[in-house]
Amino acid sequence: MTKKVLIIGAVALGPKVACRLRRLDPDAEITLLDRDNLISYGGCGIPYYVGGDINDLEDLYSTSAHVLRDKLFFENCKGVHVRTEVEALSIDRKNKKVTVKNLLDNSEEQLEYDKLVLATGANPCRPPFPGTDLDNVFMLASLHEAERLKALMTRGEVGKAVVIGGGAIGVEICEAMQDLWGIETTLIEMEDQVLPTLMGKCIARVVKSHLEEKGVKVLIDEKVNQISTATTIDTLWVETSNTVIEADVVILATGVRPNTTLAAEAGLALGNFGGLSVDKRMRTSDPDIYAGGDCVELCHLISGENMLMSLGSLANRQGRIIATNIAGGNSHFDGTVGTFCMKVFDLGIGKAGLTFRQAKETGYDPVYAVISQSDHAHFYPHSELLFISLIADKKSRKILGVEAAGKHGDAVKARIDTVAVLLKHGVTVDDICNIETGYAPPYASAMDAVNNAGNALDNILAGRNFPIDSYDFIEQFRHGKTKVLDTRGTREAAPFIEKYPAQWLNIPQNELRLRIDEIPGDQLLYLICDTGPRSYETQVFLAAQGLNNTRNIQGGFAMVKMTDPTFI
Amino acid sequence: MTKKVLIIGAVALGPKVACRLRRLDPDAEITLLDRDNLISYGGCGIPYYVGGDINDLEDLYSTSAHVLRDKLFFENCKGVHVRTEVEALSIDRKNKKVTVKNLLDNSEEQLEYDKLVLATGANPCRPPFPGTDLDNVFMLASLHEAERLKALMTRGEVGKAVVIGGGAIGVEICEAMQDLWGIETTLIEMEDQVLPTLMGKCIARVVKSHLEEKGVKVLIDEKVNQISTATTIDTLWVETSNTVIEADVVILATGVRPNTTLAAEAGLALGNFGGLSVDKRMRTSDPDIYAGGDCVELCHLISGENMLMSLGSLANRQGRIIATNIAGGNSHFDGTVGTFCMKVFDLGIGKAGLTFRQAKETGYDPVYAVISQSDHAHFYPHSELLFISLIADKKSRKILGVEAAGKHGDAVKARIDTVAVLLKHGVTVDDICNIETGYAPPYASAMDAVNNAGNALDNILAGRNFPIDSYDFIEQFRHGKTKVLDTRGTREAAPFIEKYPAQWLNIPQNELRLRIDEIPGDQLLYLICDTGPRSYETQVFLAAQGLNNTRNIQGGFAMVKMTDPTFI
Repeated sequence: MTKKVLIIGAVALGPKVACRLRRLDPDAEITLLDRDNLISYGGCGIPYYVGGDINDLEDLYSTSAHVLRDKLFFENCKGVHVRTEVEALSIDRKNKKVTVKNLLDNSEEQLEYDKLVLATGANPCRPPFPGTDLDNVFMLASLHEAERLKALMTRGEVGKAVVIGGGAIGVEICEAMQDLWGIETTLIEMEDQVLPTLMGKCIARVVKSHLEEKGVKVLIDEKVNQISTATTIDTLWVETSNTVIEADVVILATGVRPNTTLAAEAGLALGNFGGLSVDKRMRTSDPDIYAGGDCVELCHLISGENMLMSLGSLANRQGRIIATNIAGGNSHFDGTVGTFCMKVFDLGIGKAGLTFRQAKETGYDPVYAVISQSDHAHFYPHSELLFISLIADKKSRKILGVEAAGKHGDAVKARIDTVAVLLKHGVTVDDICNIETGYAPPYASAMDAVNNAGNALDNILAGRNFPIDSYDFIEQFRHGKTKVLDTRGTREAAPFIEKYPAQWLNIPQNELRLRIDEIPGDQLLYLICDTGPRSYETQVFLAAQGLNNTRNIQGGFAMVKMTDPTFI
Repeated sequence: MTKKVLIIGAVALGPKVACRLRRLDPDAEITLLDRDNLISYGGCGIPYYVGGDINDLEDLYSTSAHVLRDKLFFENCKGVHVRTEVEALSIDRKNKKVTVKNLLDNSEEQLEYDKLVLATGANPCRPPFPGTDLDNVFMLASLHEAERLKALMTRGEVGKAVVIGGGAIGVEICEAMQDLWGIETTLIEMEDQVLPTLMGKCIARVVKSHLEEKGVKVLIDEKVNQISTATTIDTLWVETSNTVIEADVVILATGVRPNTTLAAEAGLALGNFGGLSVDKRMRTSDPDIYAGGDCVELCHLISGENMLMSLGSLANRQGRIIATNIAGGNSHFDGTVGTFCMKVFDLGIGKAGLTFRQAKETGYDPVYAVISQSDHAHFYPHSELLFISLIADKKSRKILGVEAAGKHGDAVKARIDTVAVLLKHGVTVDDICNIETGYAPPYASAMDAVNNAGNALDNILAGRNFPIDSYDFIEQFRHGKTKVLDTRGTREAAPFIEKYPAQWLNIPQNELRLRIDEIPGDQLLYLICDTGPRSYETQVFLAAQGLNNTRNIQGGFAMVKMTDPTFI
């Protein structure tokens, strides 16, 4: 008997299930439904369409061979039946039927299924303050809204923009508007850092500085009270607790919420965060109904807790698994470590696992190291610095997370991914010290930055490296009570001595053994060099001489400069 | 009591041991010995110095802060005693003494040790044919020889060069000479492919084509009989079994052999390949003597066999481990999976684990997939194709190796490293299908190339994908008995139909369901599309219609073109 498979939602996971299932089961009757008329698109490409890196909206729903992924394509090339502009209203689980409404003529009908797949995704959260429904306040939840925003900019109608929400989408949209269009953009985030659920404070601080360097005004720790407009003009006013900002457009990027109304009404089990509960085979509490993508909760493999994780990459992997299982296979999705990367202007950043804060909340006792190192051999031209933060549990030495930033995005991704794929294997700091990655001067150092992040953390855990991170250093240094011992050459140190005469002491590393008497033993000394190794070596040397009053600035001056470009 | 640590060899592993040990043990008396006057240099940078990417030889032995790593540096900055131009003659293990000769005045003395470290590296193999000792025949075993070769080229005295040996160093030197200097370069390799111990035939073929595209003449399966010169002129003649090639310089890049004479004479145990035997703590058969780097044998974690692996990256990791252990710690080096990467002109390539041939020799029953895919989202600008070959054992589905090539070297490295670090954890094809790496359109696809390499291999193992690799396809197609079914658009197929009218059939994928009757069922059909997915989908569709006479060309036309640019 022909199997009837109905898939609700046709953006990422839905089409993946449909196409894979067709290849596994030539006889199944596969139907994809979607409310929209545009389907099977790269939603993560929206900021690049808005920003102009991608010219045509169609590129987001074309194949790599430039064929439009429309109804006809699915019908003729994939053997999959597609119905667009159709909304699923209810699921009758007992009789295995879904009631749908045709959005063009409001007619209703019932569709039968043997297996149902819910790929209903997530909806953007509308924040609770007034004014979010005004004209020119965008959510960017669909290609249509992206098209409308781009049209406004193309016509030159946008001079100023406010982006509310400093998560990944908010940050990407800032780049899209500021970079190509030169729009005066303000980013407002209510937490005390950008990317609050994604990055720890060190890399988040680097991102903030980079956004500011590129002209984006970034307000953190700032709550929006309302968006308003005068009746006669189009200008919007974004009012926060501290200020009022004028804008031609406002983008709401305040997170997403799983779209589970249909599932909940059908009595399917939800998790603590409002996503659908699924087992490792991606089945809901009804074994004939599968779900995946942004509408489900996933197990975080480091925290052990269920969570929401809206990533197109995970949706695609889950889609393949669902198809395999519907076709009678047995394929598992174990969970996620939240591997993620993004581009912020000239910076590539990435992360996997937990941030320091998340690790603490989970009950770990986290310790972290931050290092700066060339991505390629330092003697090879075209190297850029990589900044890596590695987090482990103090007692078990288990790696909990990794974050990185750098100007060569592919090189950042290489380091993040390498640690990311190991996380679920429960690796320790020692494994990272010895991680075996490819080395050639054009692409890496013999002791790669990832290894050295492990080495630094190993030294911190061994009590040899007493670190302070660049952000804390800057805060404390600005309060003026502490001194820096700069182990770089005289020339590198000169401008700092001039700027901070009372607080900056310079003894180049090669003179340290001779000039040890000049080092004050009675006050806290922050040790600095270019990227960290010499200040660490100095710290170890001073400790052997009985001087334990030092803190080693993690990542050296390179990291200080990334954290606060105004430091010098 | 102060511990005396003597380290013989001061290039990569030696200095690493010395510096780390100084940080762990402020009191140890640490002495580094070397025969040369130049120490602590990046030997892997030699080709880039020769090729001009790196201007000054000093860059190869300077720190990232541009400080020369000479005797004074080690003395003043590192607290390590260095003696250069000193050769170790013999080890008296009973009395823990090493007899050394000062190469400047030939005086001899004895140095005591509590712990001895052998970092004696490897020597280049001199091939057995006559003429290898002629003037202008180089081995490039030291910075001095590199300097001499570069001086010749700078003076314009090199118009033609022959490189003997198509391993990594041979290939890198070809690039160095051909690219900047425009020297007419011929590469001669006796095996039937370039990089014979490093890459499988698919990627090796891509490398060969790329070398040829860049003007290097590549001779494989070619044995050199002798190098000769007329007495009156400087020209060298390289005579092979098939031809004679004129050259101004000849570079011998015919592999290296561990330098273990000193150790062997002291009665330390050697392995089957002539390298020193060490345990996981990097101790030789004498527990007071450690060894690491190019002079030891390592366990290959996939084959389970001991082997030689000359990689600066491994030497550095081992150096840290040796220092930890000498200082009383307990640190292990488990073995290697041979992760490696290199740049070949515009191409980045990489590998980890075993090649198909090596896997077969080891007793596995290997199966492989080759895929072509954009390194970044196909809709994002500046994407380049990645070519990935993934190898697994048929029965256990265990991943045995991975190889890749592409124009964004960092992106190639990202994919190789991700699989590389998992190899020792015994992962299977299914793990690679679900590998969780970072996704953002500027850096990856939602379903990344690595995942799709896993997916392709999964489909091959499931008997759904009947593959033929591009090289075998080209060979068989050239014999003229087979036909291609091209599922691309009419325009893409047109030039092929014109060139191969009897052998090329074009049915675009979207017309396949209507034109199925045109497909011959009685002869082998090679299915092709741009990069592979459509030809696979076509194969599955045709099989469901009872047509099992097809082979899917792995990696599609993109891979065919990389394999043989003359195909069209």
